Amino acid sequence: MTQADHNATWLAVDWGTTHLRAWAMGAGKTVIARRDSDRGMSRLTQDQFAPTLANLIGDLFAQDAPIPTFICGMAGAKQGWAEAPYAAVPCIPNDVKSATAFHTDRFQVHILSGVKQNSPADVMRGEETQIAGFLAQEPDFDGVICLPGTHSKWAHISAGEIVSFRTFMTGELFALLSQNSVLRHSIGTDWDQESFVSGLNDTLSRPSDLAAKLFGLRAESLLDDLPPAAARARLSALLIGAELAAAKPYWLEQNIVIIGASSLAAIYETALISQGVAARSVDAETMTLAGLIAAYLAQERAAT
Amino acid sequence: MTQADHNATWLAVDWGTTHLRAWAMGAGKTVIARRDSDRGMSRLTQDQFAPTLANLIGDLFAQDAPIPTFICGMAGAKQGWAEAPYAAVPCIPNDVKSATAFHTDRFQVHILSGVKQNSPADVMRGEETQIAGFLAQEPDFDGVICLPGTHSKWAHISAGEIVSFRTFMTGELFALLSQNSVLRHSIGTDWDQESFVSGLNDTLSRPSDLAAKLFGLRAESLLDDLPPAAARARLSALLIGAELAAAKPYWLEQNIVIIGASSLAAIYETALISQGVAARSVDAETMTLAGLIAAYLAQERAAT
Repeated sequence: MTQADHNATWLAVDWGTTHLRAWAMGAGKTVIARRDSDRGMSRLTQDQFAPTLANLIGDLFAQDAPIPTFICGMAGAKQGWAEAPYAAVPCIPNDVKSATAFHTDRFQVHILSGVKQNSPADVMRGEETQIAGFLAQEPDFDGVICLPGTHSKWAHISAGEIVSFRTFMTGELFALLSQNSVLRHSIGTDWDQESFVSGLNDTLSRPSDLAAKLFGLRAESLLDDLPPAAARARLSALLIGAELAAAKPYWLEQNIVIIGASSLAAIYETALISQGVAARSVDAETMTLAGLIAAYLAQERAAT
Repeated sequence: MTQADHNATWLAVDWGTTHLRAWAMGAGKTVIARRDSDRGMSRLTQDQFAPTLANLIGDLFAQDAPIPTFICGMAGAKQGWAEAPYAAVPCIPNDVKSATAFHTDRFQVHILSGVKQNSPADVMRGEETQIAGFLAQEPDFDGVICLPGTHSKWAHISAGEIVSFRTFMTGELFALLSQNSVLRHSIGTDWDQESFVSGLNDTLSRPSDLAAKLFGLRAESLLDDLPPAAARARLSALLIGAELAAAKPYWLEQNIVIIGASSLAAIYETALISQGVAARSVDAETMTLAGLIAAYLAQERAAT
């Protein structure tokens, strides 16, 4: 691939709060190049989005026509490039007809809409594209999709629509507690799987004790030399256990698909299996790209 | 009070992680001067404790004899001035016989021991002195003492001893979530009392939903313009509600005394009264000083 080739025809972009991933695409589904950057939405002012994207990957495209560009994620937030609306559940995820479309010198932009739920109030931006990517592969899927992460989501899927969903701040709580709280002195970087499973069972049997058990990690570290790897796994078990306890209506006797980065998806798979629930995992980035491709193809179909 | 007076005879010190409070005391219970500083334990190396205390309040004492100095709090942690042991429950709080005693050029130091519980593992440093201060005033108290704060404590008191206790990271979680998480965009500095009470009832009726309800504050702010004062009160209600749910064996049908700073104590009093529990509050700093005085007087009695 050299700059002279210029056979890239469209651009797929996952633009989150802290990351930017872009794929130069050939006709349809062919990936020509993938590039990423830490220039997430939170680091950019509105006028920096277009030059940031041009600098990252513009060299792979011809200069003479705007690049069809499909974007999901926080670039569509109020503080982002341009605000994209939220579609209300029940809805098809990622319906390109409701995308926010506009032109710049180099880009013909479609920012895909997020999804909202009015009661209980909830929102997503980006995960709907991963769900759409999964449904592009398995259009008849009926069940629950779990998307673990900074803000984990659980979504009921039926007849190709998101019926309802719920968000948990599990990943953000883990980061804050392990890095910024008094627990940071007790928590290591290694992981003790046995402590995770026993901690999870313990939490699920008495979820209301969460608040008391957090400081117990510090106390056990001071009094009983709790190993840092066990403390890390137990903190994760407490927080994922609290999520599973509150999300029980989503996973009990359900068909579960986990869309996540491999290490995190494996932890959730272990957690669900320990509760007797069958779950399988698919890769988050693959699903994001599949969702962006589905949006591009839908737009192409609509245009012809 | 001038430097020439030098009628201060002993020094009471509350030395926490982030604060230092010192009282120059006359004979017995008379406060001559109170001074404070932000030079808490976390900002000091071991050799900085003595000069820090001398700079803060040493001018009020004669130079010719070491100052009897009674200290509670994190100055007794491993990373502090000198490690003080933990007494194991059941125990009298603040028994001066188990204090760590040593001399420096200016100070004849007694660092009061903390209290530990082996199962479930738990520790306190400083709160035991507040409990001792309260018991100095009401030696026949039998019931539960609640000490809200960064790490809230609940302690069963009987026959002058701490029988058991439990720690909750409520204050630290509130600070992290309101200042460092995605919720910071939705949370104001004002307080809506009605939202607090309704949020508390809601949380206590379904404590296991905590993890789902946190992100709901952000979503309601985005979708329904949840007022920042209501968001602040609801976050507090979620976290204090989780604490009350887990601490229920401590407060149900009990005689409760809250030792806390006035605004925080009032919030906990409201919370407990909303659950039909009678509670009264006493001032934390007053109890700390009373506990240090009790330790000094006990030491005086033992010496004569």
